[in-house]
This record gives sequence, structure tokens and C-alpha cells, in this order.
Amino acid sequence: MKLYYAPGSCALAAHIALEEAAADYTAERIDLKAGQQTSADYLAVNPKGRVPALVTERGILTETPAILAFIAQNYPSARLAPLDDPFAFAQAQSVNSYICSTLHVAHAHRHRGARWASDEASFADMRRKVPENMAACFGMIERTMLRGPWVMGDDYTICDPYLFTVARWMESDGVRPSDFPAIEAHMKRMSERPAVRKVLAFYPA
Amino acid sequence: MKLYYAPGSCALAAHIALEEAAADYTAERIDLKAGQQTSADYLAVNPKGRVPALVTERGILTETPAILAFIAQNYPSARLAPLDDPFAFAQAQSVNSYICSTLHVAHAHRHRGARWASDEASFADMRRKVPENMAACFGMIERTMLRGPWVMGDDYTICDPYLFTVARWMESDGVRPSDFPAIEAHMKRMSERPAVRKVLAFYPA
Repeated sequence: MKLYYAPGSCALAAHIALEEAAADYTAERIDLKAGQQTSADYLAVNPKGRVPALVTERGILTETPAILAFIAQNYPSARLAPLDDPFAFAQAQSVNSYICSTLHVAHAHRHRGARWASDEASFADMRRKVPENMAACFGMIERTMLRGPWVMGDDYTICDPYLFTVARWMESDGVRPSDFPAIEAHMKRMSERPAVRKVLAFYPA
Repeated sequence: MKLYYAPGSCALAAHIALEEAAADYTAERIDLKAGQQTSADYLAVNPKGRVPALVTERGILTETPAILAFIAQNYPSARLAPLDDPFAFAQAQSVNSYICSTLHVAHAHRHRGARWASDEASFADMRRKVPENMAACFGMIERTMLRGPWVMGDDYTICDPYLFTVARWMESDGVRPSDFPAIEAHMKRMSERPAVRKVLAFYPA
């Protein structure tokens, strides 16, 4: 398998999950600043022009929540999700869906306002609201999702690398990690895992 | 089980899936115009203050992609997803994740601009871009996801009620259904299913 990734992007979540699953994969960096994600070569991989994309022998997968669930299901011995319990699996997927469709979207309004508006004044207005929105998202996760020590409780799952990935955006999005002590402790716990250390070498701060 | 829903909302997708699965459930309407989604009673159900929420004997589930996968896994005999094939399941989940985190988000910028900005001028700017963004999303689905006759090909899955739900927003979002003939044909095919007809009675146009 091959993972297309970019530093700073949410591809980090799938990257960590592949490493935790001991998957046989390579990683290819896409240069977002140079616009490589919209090159003809990359659009043939992912017509959406985004990362991550995971090339498998069956075809290409996109969308982080789908890739994470695939890694969990494809490497069941890594026990990265409660695969035999549809309700618990849905709870894990619910966390990942919230991160993808609410938290990541709130984050994207800082630099990607042009996706949803056209005027510089609108982009500035959006940027001003990012700290408040991101704090609300992290508050929701801290209060209602993160059970501890891992997101789903005692078992490390595909929710953990995803939360870790977006929690790394806190400070640049104007959120104080110390306001969310459970998430801050989770970040520390994550950063001590060998798989995370190995993958972070691909994601310079 | 009990599904909290609101007319016009994406709860329609889970509602149809429950009906297709022949699940034993009731549906309770939340009055979004009256702000019932932010009442203390409802926030105790879903602290995010959104619909849908699915109450199960194990607890409450939120986020449409997670609820749809749960319904498919919890009612395997309804065959609403390729449950024994992690790659095909991931492809279905990828479609649903795209609908949730890109298409639904693009749609929300028409009336929910206050989630991401503060000024009336920004809201108007966002509204102007909705037709273009929604057309791009439907174009992406038509070209790269919808295989026909159903989203995943010959088998009806949890992707179908979700696509049907958001395709109903086309005209009010300034998109011509006839520009997307495969989606338009899919809508017609969906509207002929008994489960869809039954559920649509809860969702007046």
C-alpha cells in the first residue's frame, strides 16, 4: 500500500494507524505549497485534490474516517477498533465523523476560507472565529467523547491518532492546550508511543 | 430505538435506512425553527444540539455516517453494506464521509454562516458561493462515486438514502438536477421504493 500525505495535514492520522497496524506500506509526500495536490498526476489518484489517499491492491481510498476504519478492519489482529461490537464501533466512528465534519471544517476556515466565500473581508471574519470554534470542538470532545486514558477508554483505537492529529493544531488555531487537560494528557500519552514517534519524523512542526 | 429527526435535515438518511432494515423504532420530531435542538431536554440527548440522534438500548449515537454504518451492521440480513469486505465497506464509507464533511458543509453555508463567521456581509458572500460549491460536489459524486443503478453498483446500500437526502437540496441550493442526470435518475429510483415513500411522509417539502 502507499499513503499520499503532507506535513501539517490530517494524513497523519492514517499514517499512525498504518504504523500501529504494522502494515506493509510506503509513504509519498505531496507538496501542498507547490500545488502538487492539483497536478494531473495526483488528480488521477484523488480527484478531490486532497490528502490523504491510500493506494491499495484493490483500488484507492480517500476520506480519513473511511481509511481509518479500513485499516482497523483489514488488520484485525492490531485491535484498532471494537470490530465485533456494532454499537461500540459506531461510537468510535461517531468521534471520527465529528472530528472530520465539524472540527476539521472549523479549522479549515482559518486558511481555506476561499472554499466557501470570495471576499478578503469574509476570510478575515472567518479567521477571527476560529479560536472560539476550535475551543468549542475540543471542549465537546473533552466533555463528551474522551473517556481516558484513550478516547474509547482502556483500548487504543483509530480515534486516538485522529484526535492526536487535530490536537496538534490547537496552538496555531489560538486554543490553549492547558484549557483541555484531558486532551493535553492524551497528546503526551500519544507522543510516547513508538509508532507515533516514528511517523512524526515525516511531519516536521 | 428512537430516532430524533427534523424535516429538511439529513436525519432523513438514517430514517430511510431504519425503515429499509425493518428496524423496530419510533421517530420523534425536533422543531428546529423553535430552537428545540438547544433545549435542555434535547441537549441531554445530543449535546451537539443537532439531528439526527439515535437512541438505542446501549446508548445514544450521533453523526449520520456512524449511524448508517451501525444500522447496516446491526441488521446484517438487510444487506445494507458490504459487511464482509473491508475494502468495499470503506468505499461506501468514503462516499458517506464526503457527503457529510464536504457536501453537507457546503450546503450549510447557505443558512448557517453564523457557525463560521460573524458579519452579515460574510453570510451573503458565503450564500453566493453555495450554488457553485454544491454543483462541484454533485459533479464529483456523479463522475467518481455513483456507479448505478445504486451508488455502489448493483447493491442498494447505506450510501443511497444519504445521497437521496442531500440531492433533495439541489434546487433550493441553486443547482439544476438535470445537470446531473445520473443523480436525477437515482432520485427517481429512490422515490419509488416503498420504504422511502413511507418515510417521506415525515418530511414535508
